[in-house]
Amino acid sequence: MATLYGVGVGPGDPELITLKALRLLEEVPVICAPRSREEGESLAGEVVTSLLGEKLQSKEFLLLHFPMTRDRKVLEEAWREAASQVVARLRQGKDVAFVTLGDPSFYSTFPYLRQAVLALAPETRVAVVPGVSSLSSCMALGGVWVQENERLAVIPVTGDFSSDTWLNEFDCLVFLKGGRHWKKLREFLAARGYLAQARLVERCSTPEEKVYPAAEVEKAPYLSQVIVHRSRF
Amino acid sequence: MATLYGVGVGPGDPELITLKALRLLEEVPVICAPRSREEGESLAGEVVTSLLGEKLQSKEFLLLHFPMTRDRKVLEEAWREAASQVVARLRQGKDVAFVTLGDPSFYSTFPYLRQAVLALAPETRVAVVPGVSSLSSCMALGGVWVQENERLAVIPVTGDFSSDTWLNEFDCLVFLKGGRHWKKLREFLAARGYLAQARLVERCSTPEEKVYPAAEVEKAPYLSQVIVHRSRF
Repeated sequence: MATLYGVGVGPGDPELITLKALRLLEEVPVICAPRSREEGESLAGEVVTSLLGEKLQSKEFLLLHFPMTRDRKVLEEAWREAASQVVARLRQGKDVAFVTLGDPSFYSTFPYLRQAVLALAPETRVAVVPGVSSLSSCMALGGVWVQENERLAVIPVTGDFSSDTWLNEFDCLVFLKGGRHWKKLREFLAARGYLAQARLVERCSTPEEKVYPAAEVEKAPYLSQVIVHRSRF
Repeated sequence: MATLYGVGVGPGDPELITLKALRLLEEVPVICAPRSREEGESLAGEVVTSLLGEKLQSKEFLLLHFPMTRDRKVLEEAWREAASQVVARLRQGKDVAFVTLGDPSFYSTFPYLRQAVLALAPETRVAVVPGVSSLSSCMALGGVWVQENERLAVIPVTGDFSSDTWLNEFDCLVFLKGGRHWKKLREFLAARGYLAQARLVERCSTPEEKVYPAAEVEKAPYLSQVIVHRSRF
């Protein structure tokens, strides 16, 4: 049986891929990338295309459908379908690299594929190649960092984010998908007096990347991150 | 005035550096790396040496002293001394790359140098090149990830780490420098019934890297990370 690699290609800028990830993509016969619409594009796939160029022609390059829905049945069917395509290649003895933006361990699509592949073929060898996460790139662009004894919390705003405890006990809080519920998050931070300590980073690691003092932002795009640091801003 | 780059070289394996970091190291005339003892080695410096080899001979390669002490006066004097060496090169119009293991925003030495350089030369342009953090590489090796609405907390055990709130409200907790106070951390996790959900990752991204169920570990090396995940282990 071949190996399934979860490969982080970095936050979007193709130059932020690692040497290891690039070597693996050059070596494997099959590369898979996720896309959220059946005929849509894949951001991770675009990074691969821009890096490998014509070298892709000697490989199989599969775009796998990972729909954006909360319907668990639709999701599980899509994961199973994606996994069956991957397992077919693995069973032919072909190593498969599944690419994700950022880092495969950090809010990526890779775990869903991994679980679905292991359900179909439990003997599969899985290896993860870490990448530069969106957390690291947003902190770099936002001009913020954590050091010494500082505690860091990462909180997707698609879940509950409004705990006073976390605001008081963590030095740095990073709210993921901050654009989606920006109005509610903004109100929460403002009510606790933390809005001035917040930066909003949008489209990080793309040519349109920007950082704003969060207090100045009325509307934010979906993939924004909001970083609050008690003493850095 | 030239630019000071904070360059993350990844968690230790030279192949986990990004293309961007490698390009910058090849371009700049001055590379600096931190070491904790005056005549000691620099782990980040070793990554640079193994990647650049003979190309280093055309550059200035400075090892800067960042002592391991809690004596604030000794530390500040060391930061000032390191900064004055860097500022001298910047004032000659030479770009300087300061390399750190992992990611410059994530518990690295770069912020101390940045602050000290800006104190001496406030006009300095600073840019951060994110790297693969030890967090990403330990999660990859530990076989753990965060997804969807899961909340992640990163907690250096050199500070207070014993909050029941965090254990109950975060899905994944990563304890940094877990080796240093492993006995206390182990007792804390065991008392709350979380020891079975914990993995200890040691010497991640080196040839000696290992993962253990934390319950099996009596003594742990300094740079260990302990990862607790409510539902993944």
